[in-house]
Amino acid sequence: MLNAHHDRIRLPQLQARITDAATAAALIHDGMTVGMSGFTRSGEAKEVPLALAARAQKERIKITLMTGASLGNDVDKILTEAGALARRMPFQADPVLRAAINRGEVMYIDHHLSETVELLRTKQIAPIDVAIIEAVAITETGAIIPTTSVGNSASYAILADQVIVEINLSQALELEGLHDVFIPKHRPSREPVPLVAVDQRIGSTAIQIDPDKIAAIVFTHKLDSASPIAQPDEDTAAIARHLIAFFEEEVNAGRLTKQLLPLQAGIGSIANAVMMGFVDSPFEKLTMYSEVLQDCAFDLFDAGKLDFASASSITLSEEKGKDVFSRFAAYKDRLVLRPQEVSNHPEVIRRLGIIAINAALEVDIYGNVNSTHVQGTHMMNGIGGSGDFARNAYLSIFATKSLAKGGDVSRIVPMVTHVDHTEHDVDIIVTEVGLADLRGLAPRERAQVIVNHCVAEPYRSMLKAYIADANQRGGQTPHVLERAFEWHTRYRVHGSMKKIEE
Amino acid sequence: MLNAHHDRIRLPQLQARITDAATAAALIHDGMTVGMSGFTRSGEAKEVPLALAARAQKERIKITLMTGASLGNDVDKILTEAGALARRMPFQADPVLRAAINRGEVMYIDHHLSETVELLRTKQIAPIDVAIIEAVAITETGAIIPTTSVGNSASYAILADQVIVEINLSQALELEGLHDVFIPKHRPSREPVPLVAVDQRIGSTAIQIDPDKIAAIVFTHKLDSASPIAQPDEDTAAIARHLIAFFEEEVNAGRLTKQLLPLQAGIGSIANAVMMGFVDSPFEKLTMYSEVLQDCAFDLFDAGKLDFASASSITLSEEKGKDVFSRFAAYKDRLVLRPQEVSNHPEVIRRLGIIAINAALEVDIYGNVNSTHVQGTHMMNGIGGSGDFARNAYLSIFATKSLAKGGDVSRIVPMVTHVDHTEHDVDIIVTEVGLADLRGLAPRERAQVIVNHCVAEPYRSMLKAYIADANQRGGQTPHVLERAFEWHTRYRVHGSMKKIEE
Ligand SMILES: CC(C)(COP(=O)(O)OP(=O)(O)OC[C@H]1O[C@@H](n2cnc3c(N)ncnc32)[C@H](O)[C@@H]1OP(=O)(O)O)[C@@H](O)C(=O)NCCC(=O)NCCS
Ligand SMILES: CC(C)(COP(=O)(O)OP(=O)(O)OC[C@H]1O[C@@H](n2cnc3c(N)ncnc32)[C@H](O)[C@@H]1OP(=O)(O)O)[C@@H](O)C(=O)NCCC(=O)NCCS
Repeated sequence: MLNAHHDRIRLPQLQARITDAATAAALIHDGMTVGMSGFTRSGEAKEVPLALAARAQKERIKITLMTGASLGNDVDKILTEAGALARRMPFQADPVLRAAINRGEVMYIDHHLSETVELLRTKQIAPIDVAIIEAVAITETGAIIPTTSVGNSASYAILADQVIVEINLSQALELEGLHDVFIPKHRPSREPVPLVAVDQRIGSTAIQIDPDKIAAIVFTHKLDSASPIAQPDEDTAAIARHLIAFFEEEVNAGRLTKQLLPLQAGIGSIANAVMMGFVDSPFEKLTMYSEVLQDCAFDLFDAGKLDFASASSITLSEEKGKDVFSRFAAYKDRLVLRPQEVSNHPEVIRRLGIIAINAALEVDIYGNVNSTHVQGTHMMNGIGGSGDFARNAYLSIFATKSLAKGGDVSRIVPMVTHVDHTEHDVDIIVTEVGLADLRGLAPRERAQVIVNHCVAEPYRSMLKAYIADANQRGGQTPHVLERAFEWHTRYRVHGSMKKIEE
Repeated sequence: MLNAHHDRIRLPQLQARITDAATAAALIHDGMTVGMSGFTRSGEAKEVPLALAARAQKERIKITLMTGASLGNDVDKILTEAGALARRMPFQADPVLRAAINRGEVMYIDHHLSETVELLRTKQIAPIDVAIIEAVAITETGAIIPTTSVGNSASYAILADQVIVEINLSQALELEGLHDVFIPKHRPSREPVPLVAVDQRIGSTAIQIDPDKIAAIVFTHKLDSASPIAQPDEDTAAIARHLIAFFEEEVNAGRLTKQLLPLQAGIGSIANAVMMGFVDSPFEKLTMYSEVLQDCAFDLFDAGKLDFASASSITLSEEKGKDVFSRFAAYKDRLVLRPQEVSNHPEVIRRLGIIAINAALEVDIYGNVNSTHVQGTHMMNGIGGSGDFARNAYLSIFATKSLAKGGDVSRIVPMVTHVDHTEHDVDIIVTEVGLADLRGLAPRERAQVIVNHCVAEPYRSMLKAYIADANQRGGQTPHVLERAFEWHTRYRVHGSMKKIEE
């Protein structure tokens, strides 16, 4: 066999399973649940889903698709357009799929990212029929070595009846050894997750399954989608400055050392700006315990600021990706990729004492956060790991610009239209205007601090007027219920939350 | 010394610290933070707080009072009426204090009950000046043996500058050995909480502190307040029936065994009815891993249904209390009381796979739960441990009657006016009407199941009409924002959520 790739398929008996994507996709039938690799646009299966979409154009195939998180290479878009998705969990970030979800065509169940495989393992959601896992190679024992993400791949492969492996020949064999696959035992034999340090390894470097379950092996050369470069702007730079100043005060107050505590940061321009803010900061020997590593993590390595980074995936811009993977040995011993059940595990997050930095769509005067639903109704992406981190973090920070839509939307509102994170799980709110430190404050106090530190005019005055009226009604958390969403309605009807001159 | 009580104060040097409540209370000054024992009306300090209240009647003393949870013996009421409370955390359930909180007079910060001492330990909230801990005795090494609750007592005593001990002579020395005091280490040396079984002991039986910190010892004879007997009625009996039937189905489906998984149950009539429903059920060898043990736990022991119960406190009715404590040896080896940081620890709850049963003020069509704020504004009690359990449980159940106020309030509403638990943390909703199993469902599906299974007329039709209108607007979680709280406004203005005939 010319294309045997003995270094990529090291268990000889599996060579016979090499096939093309269409043949592999034929294993998937209408109504099945498919568990697929892929987390924040990295490491998703790239061939079989497209072959499945092609089939779905011609015959009725509607599946439940479960992944780690969002997918690259337009896989969600292509499957949606082919009408192949009946149900989707636990996360997505694709505009076409999002629109189908919001039309009620695809049933979307967004989970705390640490919980999906727990629900599967305890049979509380429908079992996985077929898993499709991108791999760099299959070992001598038939174990699967993941590529740029681990996500839920390990548990999907373990729990599935059949497994399709997509071997990505564009991913270097050097990735072997990067992953740390740990799977908790079934109850009542469940033991502590033994992780006590960011750089500790507690599992194996590949996903061991019964090789007989590997029903098909497909090759691909396609790379992960490059992640868009999140350019900092004046606002994100200001947010970063406020946060760095806050961390400096915490060090001065003796609550943190210059090493801080392990950092988690979401994706996007704010996380990027904040992380880049550490380059010229007094902090050192930083560590990350996050879901995803972006360009900024590698910039911090290069700047000598970051000692170690743990996550569930790596997603880089085109340029950075070329650079990092061309000299991967320079980083490899300071990196580990874990299953998202471990990267996001409440137990580990609480134990390590993470500083969690996530973004918000809107926050309210009491510090409740909406991360997911535009106008309370339309799904943006999903809650993702933000809840795993915010609830259990040492310090839970939410960052957002104070405005959206050219100032017609205030992202600080009287009441959020959807709650993903309650006031109990939100310690710090930061906007370009400033930072509100809410620790130890009662709701009425939180409102004052948020309005005075995070909001610019005209919304500051408008919120003050709302608070004054709400306080007349009394309560622990005063509101004027019939006006709580007035701003949102005004935006929907008139295109702006600003007061209309009468 | 006549009243030396050598069995109660076993470290001789501490005999000299015996004093009266007024003298002990004089250690507390205006502006101080006081950490006190007491959890769900049991084991609170009973003498010094009253002496403090007496002083506050005459001089300005306003303190921050931190406890485990709610207090008995009207301590919160008396301190509130004396104007002694500036700030209060992390939980309360007193009508007088509640009213002061809702008037904005006392700043109330309700916490996830597992988190309070974590915030203290990391100095993120103001430190404890004086701790007041009820005890059965002080050991040879100066360690404090708690009474009927552990709550936050251990960490408060460890972190306080000075400790006042109230030795309760009405509590039998037999309580010694009941408690299991485990304190996590400071980060970065934090290790796993080693608890892997409900009946495991991982700590010490008393709270070891530097005996020199014990600044005063006071005696009391006062008992805990008897807890009101939560009488079952037709509705709570129906709720219990629905839940028992659900558990039977889970066993039949092979997801649970007849032993189920460790049970957590809140306080009140619903929890009581559900737990009593197990007496004549096919389940056996049950265990509890809860915050608080009520009468029903001991009834289940007596019925031979319950094998072991772990909690942070015991709170019994007058009759049951007399019975249980008169023959405590019969129960002691099947009981353990832990710090609430351990009883409610996310790590342990997730590991053990708890079945969590909590009550709700209102739930909405998508399964978001309001446990705390009447009409979204007025504090009832606090979030307590419901979030610790609901988020991390194997199965998160919320139980509520479908109606309140003689039918003028529907407890299933279009949108909850305050969110304590998001849809992600709510698996089952049960009312007297029926049970909604929400696992694996998307929001639009959840709405159908909740409305069809949990709501009676006229609210069922009203909710169906709301959903139809909301679906016109589209979205993952459809709403008509300007009408989302219409029912609440109607209740406030007209005294009923029911439609008014035009
Ligand atoms: C919340 C979240 C969407 C914010 O992302 P972001 O990149 O900061 O968001 P942006 O400011 O770019 O806003 C995104 C879009 O929503 C719009 N928007 C933002 N807030 C809005 C609001 N309150 N009302 C209406 N539209 C709003 C913006 O205008 C923008 O639209 P546009 O691109 O058409 O201009 C994102 O962080 C997320 O999905 N979080 C949930 C998952 C998560 O936290 N994961 C954790 C770690 S990966
Ligand atoms: C939510 C909680 C208040 C429900 O308790 P409960 O005993 O089931 O509540 P009840 O049905 O008796 O209602 C209490 C009162 O509120 C009123 N009420 C209930 N729901 C209401 C609503 N939606 N709107 C207005 N009033 C409401 C009732 O009429 C009753 O008032 P009344 O005594 O004047 O008639 C209680 O479980 C709690 O405090 N939970 C939070 C803490 C927690 O869960 N701890 C976990 C374990 S201890």
